[in-house]
Amino acid sequence: MDERAALAVLEDELGPVGDDAAVVDDLVVTTDMLHETTDFPPGTTRYTAGWRAVGASLSDVAAMGGQATAAVAAYAAPEFDEEELLAFVRGASDVCERVGAEYVGGDLDGHEEFTVATTAFGTTDAPVRRSGAAVGDRVCVTGTLGRSAAALELFDRAKLERDDGSGDWSGSTETDANERDAALERANELFRFEPRVGAGRALAPHASAMMDSSDGLARSLHQLSEASDCGFAVDAETIPVDDAVFETTETDEAALERTITFGEDFELVATIPETALEAAQAATTVPLTPIGTVVESDITIDGEPLSDRGYTHG
Amino acid sequence: MDERAALAVLEDELGPVGDDAAVVDDLVVTTDMLHETTDFPPGTTRYTAGWRAVGASLSDVAAMGGQATAAVAAYAAPEFDEEELLAFVRGASDVCERVGAEYVGGDLDGHEEFTVATTAFGTTDAPVRRSGAAVGDRVCVTGTLGRSAAALELFDRAKLERDDGSGDWSGSTETDANERDAALERANELFRFEPRVGAGRALAPHASAMMDSSDGLARSLHQLSEASDCGFAVDAETIPVDDAVFETTETDEAALERTITFGEDFELVATIPETALEAAQAATTVPLTPIGTVVESDITIDGEPLSDRGYTHG
Repeated sequence: MDERAALAVLEDELGPVGDDAAVVDDLVVTTDMLHETTDFPPGTTRYTAGWRAVGASLSDVAAMGGQATAAVAAYAAPEFDEEELLAFVRGASDVCERVGAEYVGGDLDGHEEFTVATTAFGTTDAPVRRSGAAVGDRVCVTGTLGRSAAALELFDRAKLERDDGSGDWSGSTETDANERDAALERANELFRFEPRVGAGRALAPHASAMMDSSDGLARSLHQLSEASDCGFAVDAETIPVDDAVFETTETDEAALERTITFGEDFELVATIPETALEAAQAATTVPLTPIGTVVESDITIDGEPLSDRGYTHG
Repeated sequence: MDERAALAVLEDELGPVGDDAAVVDDLVVTTDMLHETTDFPPGTTRYTAGWRAVGASLSDVAAMGGQATAAVAAYAAPEFDEEELLAFVRGASDVCERVGAEYVGGDLDGHEEFTVATTAFGTTDAPVRRSGAAVGDRVCVTGTLGRSAAALELFDRAKLERDDGSGDWSGSTETDANERDAALERANELFRFEPRVGAGRALAPHASAMMDSSDGLARSLHQLSEASDCGFAVDAETIPVDDAVFETTETDEAALERTITFGEDFELVATIPETALEAAQAATTVPLTPIGTVVESDITIDGEPLSDRGYTHG
């Protein structure tokens, strides 16, 4: 049984589990588990890992329109290195501070693979869900998309093992080493995103549906479509592609494809009635870009079908 | 750096991290990560695993005197088996229901080892901490101790692999198989504990310090001693040893040692002023047994030093 089938089983048992976070009274709660091999490319610092892991949970609170209150993390590793542990905790604390939340610690645990489970919570008296998009609403995204795709490409270029798998960089020239360090630094920077908690709160009174773009824009649209029983007509040239994507792709078309499908960006994807768009844009301090319109059915980009995972454009 | 040293590093960075849970405004939050190899002996059902993992976090809320509100779990496994997943979720839901909390789902994640990260939260306007025990207070425990120690012994007896490591039970007699099934069933039953949320709330107005016994009675006393800067004089014969312990140990002395040192019982250990003891006992629906007295320094049992980990009596 794959993850989707498993989610369907859980939905039958627990009720709807499709939103970014659970809501209990006025409390928003969300939890995620991340692993070194699947979520943190070689070269990711523990500071970035702490920031990103906790940030991902804060983003889920943001997507419900909640004010993030606090986060905890369970940190598991084969051994506890003081510098790594402190770096992780500082990354976690800093991302919390950025959104007005508090990092309140967690659990330490011996485990063969570096694994982090984060939980964030917050409050809202009117959670925004994935259902609610209505035909005619504009679909908008916050900030720019593609930072994580660009980060991954840079991690890849600077990968810690040489092609012979030796991990021995001693024979490399100084220029190579400098380039590698610069690529890693930039990759880490791009990998640390700003959870859109402020934007989420600002959009909450205006948005008819909302989620974060952690699984990619294409998949987000498919998930909103399923929850709201609607379609989307997206205009490719309006998609706010992050400049960093162009640094790491050959063509504009490749950049767009990567931006739409890669995900892990943690921007907000919200549907907003046309009449509320201006007020919504005025209320947010980050750019809010309309990229298309809610339609009755089918998800298209420039009139062509936009598939759930991959992106195939004309 | 071992876990204790790592905790000291975190304490320097984040402030006190010694309590069972963090408190943010009137919210109590706690998180734990558990693994198949270290926390779930072979033979533990997924129902028991769900119950126990979520129950451990609920117990941390109870230890602060909080009313548990809800819990989430991140569930990681090599593959998602429908029956196992449902059993886990039902165990998690049932233990929440038992204490008036709600299980609100979580995250699914592919991982080579069955791993669960649970987070529980609740509310309290007057959290009870580990510091606060005063000389002359009585130290009490809820319920009985030693259930988990007995459970582990039974899991061990019924262990799924034969001595030759084959895991092949086909040659065993029907009697053997029946005995094994009965031992496993009893072990699972003993392993599912009642989180003491109700007792924690009832004791909160009376207790000067409180924690749960998850690391064993001996270690709990050492932890309370460190946080409250006090000692304890414990009377061995008053310790409420669970009947199940005697089923699995040869002598009464061995039973007592196991009960005091093994831990994983999730009963509450609370210090209560002598004058409040009667009211505290009347307020709880579970037995509340005084086992000793708070003294200025040193932790003793029947006058002999009680060491932090092992138990050496007479």
